[in-house]
Amino acid sequence: MPIEWAGSGPGLLLSLDRQGPEPLRSQLEGLLREAIRTGRLGVGERLPSSREMARELGLSRGLVQECYGQLQAEGYLSTQVGSATRVAAGAGISPAAPAPRPRPARLIADFASGVPDLAGFPRGDWLWALREASRTAPTAAFDYGDPHGSSLLREVLAAYLGRVRAAAADPERTVICSGFAQGLNLVLRALADGGVRKVAFEDPGYTETAAAACAAADVETVPVPVDAYGIDVDALEATGARAVVLTPAHQWPTGVVLAPERRLALVRWATRHDATIVEDDYDAEFRYDREPVGALQGLAADRVAAIGTVSKSLAPAMRLGWILCPPALADTVAELKLRQDRGSPELDQLALAALMESGRYDRHLRRMRVLYAQRRTALVESLAEHAPEVRLTGLAAGFHAVAHLPEGADEQSVIAAARERSVGLYGMSTHRSSGATDPAQLVLGFGNLGERPIREGIAAVAGILRGEREAAPAPE
Amino acid sequence: MPIEWAGSGPGLLLSLDRQGPEPLRSQLEGLLREAIRTGRLGVGERLPSSREMARELGLSRGLVQECYGQLQAEGYLSTQVGSATRVAAGAGISPAAPAPRPRPARLIADFASGVPDLAGFPRGDWLWALREASRTAPTAAFDYGDPHGSSLLREVLAAYLGRVRAAAADPERTVICSGFAQGLNLVLRALADGGVRKVAFEDPGYTETAAAACAAADVETVPVPVDAYGIDVDALEATGARAVVLTPAHQWPTGVVLAPERRLALVRWATRHDATIVEDDYDAEFRYDREPVGALQGLAADRVAAIGTVSKSLAPAMRLGWILCPPALADTVAELKLRQDRGSPELDQLALAALMESGRYDRHLRRMRVLYAQRRTALVESLAEHAPEVRLTGLAAGFHAVAHLPEGADEQSVIAAARERSVGLYGMSTHRSSGATDPAQLVLGFGNLGERPIREGIAAVAGILRGEREAAPAPE
Repeated sequence: MPIEWAGSGPGLLLSLDRQGPEPLRSQLEGLLREAIRTGRLGVGERLPSSREMARELGLSRGLVQECYGQLQAEGYLSTQVGSATRVAAGAGISPAAPAPRPRPARLIADFASGVPDLAGFPRGDWLWALREASRTAPTAAFDYGDPHGSSLLREVLAAYLGRVRAAAADPERTVICSGFAQGLNLVLRALADGGVRKVAFEDPGYTETAAAACAAADVETVPVPVDAYGIDVDALEATGARAVVLTPAHQWPTGVVLAPERRLALVRWATRHDATIVEDDYDAEFRYDREPVGALQGLAADRVAAIGTVSKSLAPAMRLGWILCPPALADTVAELKLRQDRGSPELDQLALAALMESGRYDRHLRRMRVLYAQRRTALVESLAEHAPEVRLTGLAAGFHAVAHLPEGADEQSVIAAARERSVGLYGMSTHRSSGATDPAQLVLGFGNLGERPIREGIAAVAGILRGEREAAPAPE
Repeated sequence: MPIEWAGSGPGLLLSLDRQGPEPLRSQLEGLLREAIRTGRLGVGERLPSSREMARELGLSRGLVQECYGQLQAEGYLSTQVGSATRVAAGAGISPAAPAPRPRPARLIADFASGVPDLAGFPRGDWLWALREASRTAPTAAFDYGDPHGSSLLREVLAAYLGRVRAAAADPERTVICSGFAQGLNLVLRALADGGVRKVAFEDPGYTETAAAACAAADVETVPVPVDAYGIDVDALEATGARAVVLTPAHQWPTGVVLAPERRLALVRWATRHDATIVEDDYDAEFRYDREPVGALQGLAADRVAAIGTVSKSLAPAMRLGWILCPPALADTVAELKLRQDRGSPELDQLALAALMESGRYDRHLRRMRVLYAQRRTALVESLAEHAPEVRLTGLAAGFHAVAHLPEGADEQSVIAAARERSVGLYGMSTHRSSGATDPAQLVLGFGNLGERPIREGIAAVAGILRGEREAAPAPE
């Protein structure tokens, strides 16, 4: 029952719960703080004496005194000797909370890229690995760690990446990070520290990420065109950039694989200009037609900084990745990681090491490869059935593809019409540095999309394309 | 048994393991990559034809062709039509690994500060919490998350910090981060974005951390003296700084508690100058003599950015913390967190929420408070017994204290002598902006040190102090 108290100052409602688990003193403090914060008790306002307050509320005077003392120590109240206790000047009103953000509408099929099958996250295996990590971790593992990351994980990764990605990983030059975004940040800053002023990116590519990361590292970004063989190395050379960020195994977003002669030309370029190649090896685990092409890093470990993560292989929410650093960058990258966040969580690192060593990671990847291959087939088949005029490329690996819209189709209006039918489509234009919507292409992600929504979504898109064609003025 | 092959080019040793689990093709690829990387096969060197190689090694020609094709795709080999396969130009030699770093010597007692009892980490409770998190997390929790962090954790934290720290936490303005280092980084960058150019720090304080963080955010750092009542607000005002970073509940490293009038003066200062108070609430959970003083943030939520972590309450290796942002900073801080690392690991966040909600976190803190109180007693008692001339201050909270060495004692020589006896001591001078070694004080951490090493370490220190006194020239 609320207890009404009206004494000196305006009426104040203090409702104590005498049956609840919270001590009365703590309740009273909380209520008074709240009243001061919200302005119900204004600055300078006089509180009743502890004797009065105790009588009003049916509490002991000692309890009220302790409570006043605590709030005075915290700066909410002020007491001068021989004078009343008042609300202290400065004890303020906190502003109202902002309105909640609107939630996006639900889609029947969202072809967003870059997200793996989230339901496929191996919860049981991961818990097993965490249990193993927790069981076997020495006490010292709970301290601040080596800024390079767990030495166990770095060793396991070196062996794993050597075997699976033909990388030449050296645990001493590996730095564990929270994923690609942080990895890129750290490498760009380390390059900037070393005097690099201009960094090239693939075009189309991850334009926005690149711009933000380069701005944070205070380096200039310059786009370099990608053709059917990957990045144009002559164009790269012409930019004068001292570093390039690229996705050799499966170019993001076009999906082309960097051609062998381009790989070699890149390494020659890097050697000639004392330049660094930053390799984003984001989805190479999922290659369908043949064994994945080994990491560029393995070919030129002293020129390549390779960034990898488990964001695609396990889940983005893991926030675990690694940087295989060239010798010139390793110490700076580790130092920057130390300053930025003092390392990644140790138990997660140890758990990933256990997952990899036990073979559970490989097993999970095999399972997911089958799943993505099925979804890929669903995409190919439903396009062939409903919209055979749409060509698909970039399907050698990963879980996205590029759909080339037929002549005359407008990227933006197809996307808008699809959204009307609750289908999420994404255009290539946002990945082009020019923002050009021509040629009209869609980047179709199918990692986190079941076969049924894929087929339904593609059928809807086909309907839109038919509608566009019929609505279009007949050629003169 | 190794198979010797000597054909065109220098002798090459390729040892295939025909009984092992690794497919022969993968073995052959690995051996060739390794030979190229290490320079055993030099650039331009001709490889035997696939037919010759197959015969020499007793493999099928198709297998060797596949292997050559793979290495060609990866850039290790190059093949011109009608010409031999050669080691590609650019396929390079990776440099030798650096020598392993020397390990620090083992100490009988290390009074390093800032580390809690690592053996006390509640492994069982944490695994329980991870299991709960994994069991209850929706599928979407495995995607990239809200850059503010898990909404569940932010709600649990708001309730927890309101109850335990009298904070006025608003989940919408809370950003989960990886700990104090990252929290400070993000807040300083957000302040710099908002035009702040000069940031004040407590002196003594965490001088090096401050300097590094300010350098990274490109703001000037200015030290402000701390006296027995905490930071000198008049001196702060005189600096013209628009932000101050401080430790009100238990000043690092002096251990003084910010006096009520200083708290109010600070809030008035911040209001008058549109300034921001960055509150580091690092060990307030462990207060021994009375209830901890509430967070300054609760008093002025629109002026204070409060950074908290579980580095002291659970373990540094967790890498989880939070920032209660004032309205003006909240969006920028979240945006910076997004760019820096795209958020902290979601399962860890959900597990911390479960740990707090279940009461296990409180129970752990109560257990640890008892442990630290015992160690604190051991420190006080052994100093009283062995070196009564050494005064201890800053013991109201946390797990470090300041030892005031007797007149004439030299901080650096006491530290050096202690190191000789395998006792790790740390001077106040490293925390002073001036680096002054006078007055001679030690910062004694006892969080991760058992009662026995505390007593042994203090006995050794007392012996050193006696030795110094006896060796010192008698006053004239």
